[in-house]
Amino acid sequence: MQHFISVSDTPDDDLAVIFDVSFRLREQRNAGQANEPILAGKTLAMIFEKPSLRTNVSFQQAMYELGGNSIVMVSEQVGLGKRESAGDVARVLSGMVHGIMARVFEHEKLVEMAKHASVPVINALSDFSHPCQALADAMTLMDEFGRDLKGRTLAFVGDGNNMAHSLAVMCGKLGMNFILASPPGYEIKPDIADQIMAFVPELNLEMTHDAVDAVRYADAIYADTWISMGQEQEAVIRREVFADYQLNEALVNQSPDHAIVLHCLPAYRNVEITDAVIDGPRSRVFPQAHNRLHAQKGLVAVLMGGARARGRD
Amino acid sequence: MQHFISVSDTPDDDLAVIFDVSFRLREQRNAGQANEPILAGKTLAMIFEKPSLRTNVSFQQAMYELGGNSIVMVSEQVGLGKRESAGDVARVLSGMVHGIMARVFEHEKLVEMAKHASVPVINALSDFSHPCQALADAMTLMDEFGRDLKGRTLAFVGDGNNMAHSLAVMCGKLGMNFILASPPGYEIKPDIADQIMAFVPELNLEMTHDAVDAVRYADAIYADTWISMGQEQEAVIRREVFADYQLNEALVNQSPDHAIVLHCLPAYRNVEITDAVIDGPRSRVFPQAHNRLHAQKGLVAVLMGGARARGRD
Amino acid sequence: MQHFISVSDTPDDDLAVIFDVSFRLREQRNAGQANEPILAGKTLAMIFEKPSLRTNVSFQQAMYELGGNSIVMVSEQVGLGKRESAGDVARVLSGMVHGIMARVFEHEKLVEMAKHASVPVINALSDFSHPCQALADAMTLMDEFGRDLKGRTLAFVGDGNNMAHSLAVMCGKLGMNFILASPPGYEIKPDIADQIMAFVPELNLEMTHDAVDAVRYADAIYADTWISMGQEQEAVIRREVFADYQLNEALVNQSPDHAIVLHCLPAYRNVEITDAVIDGPRSRVFPQAHNRLHAQKGLVAVLMGGARARGRD
Repeated sequence: MQHFISVSDTPDDDLAVIFDVSFRLREQRNAGQANEPILAGKTLAMIFEKPSLRTNVSFQQAMYELGGNSIVMVSEQVGLGKRESAGDVARVLSGMVHGIMARVFEHEKLVEMAKHASVPVINALSDFSHPCQALADAMTLMDEFGRDLKGRTLAFVGDGNNMAHSLAVMCGKLGMNFILASPPGYEIKPDIADQIMAFVPELNLEMTHDAVDAVRYADAIYADTWISMGQEQEAVIRREVFADYQLNEALVNQSPDHAIVLHCLPAYRNVEITDAVIDGPRSRVFPQAHNRLHAQKGLVAVLMGGARARGRD
Repeated sequence: MQHFISVSDTPDDDLAVIFDVSFRLREQRNAGQANEPILAGKTLAMIFEKPSLRTNVSFQQAMYELGGNSIVMVSEQVGLGKRESAGDVARVLSGMVHGIMARVFEHEKLVEMAKHASVPVINALSDFSHPCQALADAMTLMDEFGRDLKGRTLAFVGDGNNMAHSLAVMCGKLGMNFILASPPGYEIKPDIADQIMAFVPELNLEMTHDAVDAVRYADAIYADTWISMGQEQEAVIRREVFADYQLNEALVNQSPDHAIVLHCLPAYRNVEITDAVIDGPRSRVFPQAHNRLHAQKGLVAVLMGGARARGRD
Repeated sequence: MQHFISVSDTPDDDLAVIFDVSFRLREQRNAGQANEPILAGKTLAMIFEKPSLRTNVSFQQAMYELGGNSIVMVSEQVGLGKRESAGDVARVLSGMVHGIMARVFEHEKLVEMAKHASVPVINALSDFSHPCQALADAMTLMDEFGRDLKGRTLAFVGDGNNMAHSLAVMCGKLGMNFILASPPGYEIKPDIADQIMAFVPELNLEMTHDAVDAVRYADAIYADTWISMGQEQEAVIRREVFADYQLNEALVNQSPDHAIVLHCLPAYRNVEITDAVIDGPRSRVFPQAHNRLHAQKGLVAVLMGGARARGRD
């Protein structure tokens, strides 16, 4: 594994190692121990074309706690593809730092960077996918249901967006079922659904317009904002279209007793998820956010530091 | 002391420890020694809704010199209370970092963050108060007059703003007199003056419209900008209203010979303070700015690192 | 050498030491060794009034790899000369950090900062010069032609801008010839050319409007963008005016076989330089960008850490 652009590109074995390392480093941290300085002397350049709280803090903190360094740049400083081609940025950074993380509008820019970089490139959210979030989400599911998630069902209630894409692929990789409940017109686009099925042919992917149907056999119910970054002008329409897809107590009560609730945050409280649900007993939303730190740590330790699972050669 | 939101919330003993530690760490630094790595492995997340030079640099540098780390975020990245509720931001950060510093427009956001954070929250300026600046100011007064400031008088010439609030409370805590000379209509608001007196009932708080009266018995004369961040549209009116409250040589000469001049910076030179005064023999303005570093260091060492005064248990 | 504001201010001996140290630290890094922590405990404050990729990353990385720290501030946070005078900013920072780097619109602000700072001030690009880039460029020439560049010729094809100024002076310092090929009206301004000749009277400085003439005897051909930061509104006119000054294969083929191509980046591909040239066999553009890291490292090691050449006393 040279880059981390999509879950689908990541060999199963590498994925397993990332989880192993993430859990091990988290255990160490939770025991009040410092992590090994796996990335001492190493720097991750971080480019943001969109705002970020969790991704920004978790990657910087991951680098720091592994003995490394990070350099953050926002869009206007870099002008990816405007001031300078994404390929040239990647070539320049490759001679100065040891990894590149980018949050971009166009997924294509990540692909171009990976093509020209001689250091690992990490997708920290694109219009196509959000694989780093999917890592943390999988960890949170494993916290609840154990490392083997085969046969579990994730119900994603909302927009068939980049987050849904990455989760669907992750579910396929982990042997889980993925069911999307969206308003008509907000399903995963047919060509992308085809791509997903090509990546993970074993995936049981369902799409429905009925949120209650979706959650009825779910082990986890997932919400994301209805209005992603860049869609602010559609806010009024979207709030109306998605009104029946709110995670509220009435809906959540239709799911099995053991089902948990996830949200990748930021949450618009009482829009796509109610206070009662996000702050309620089924919510794993904040541990899920904290897992961003641990998942990122596993990822950079493996990609940039050659970390391997304990007991593996 | 769990958070540092206001001087008034801070027990006298904790305040004394912060000063002890600040002076000790400064002494060490000035002797060319590295400070102990009290905060090794610890990270302070820093959120800025308004620009900052001193606060930004001094906190980052304080963390670095104590062996720790800092992560800086500006308003648009976090969207405190817009993109995400202040409480959710605090909950998320609490699982990733070891302290949160925020400069906010609405003081209420700090209170909300402190309510939901499991790590210390520090007020780095709000519309209500600026307690970190008050720490550095107290250190600068102690540099001049010794640790015991009882009976000393601070004359604040200008707007009865957030800076005046924090200084008034700090004066009360330290047994000093606080006198504000402001134009009519720019006094400390009656309800806030009542709050201040409730916090520090022993405070001798005076307000006058006569700058000369205010400085006549002052040990220190304090100026702040007449136009705070967010008031730029009132600039023309304010410059006129405050014209008689400029710290110039004529005014400063009405104070006792030993009186010093302070300013929290940035200064609009030859507006609220003249070149002759800020660069003159009574000015302690730049050592005062440098004390921001030392005061911040004491604060984070105590709050996040459990530092205690030498010789205390 | 107290500051690094211009190549012209830098004594020849100091320049030689900077190169020595830069090459030595690069050698160490390329051998996979960590650099000595020459700047342990030291912080560089970095102020950007204009965007930056290379300068930002290379300085931060240089500080990190030498064991030090950096604090980055963008224009709106500092308000150099607006929110606060450049002199006051320099005075405040001098008590908190160990060096100041600034990228400014007006060169005069750097001069004012240097006047008031008690720590080194570094010019990271002004409307007048870009000496840090010139350091990396000289290293890249030395990589090709050896440490002794006497008698070599640099042909700069494009606008007689800040980059041209610094390169001309650097050529003078190194005994090289400097030839500028620009459209009429875009030569180095006569008063600045006079200044340059006063700095380095031994410089062989030529200006022509004929790009082919300029490159015919060149050892290196240098391109820069035709539209510098702040000139975006002149873009259409400039693209027309400079059309005959593109570095394309036809032009480059007029130069000697051993001539190399340099560009300080960011490049507008197929505007001032074609893909075939920037990606071609003569291009040293990316090693040149990477030398920014190594040159910066030498600079801060000498300025802030007192590093000296090996075998020198």
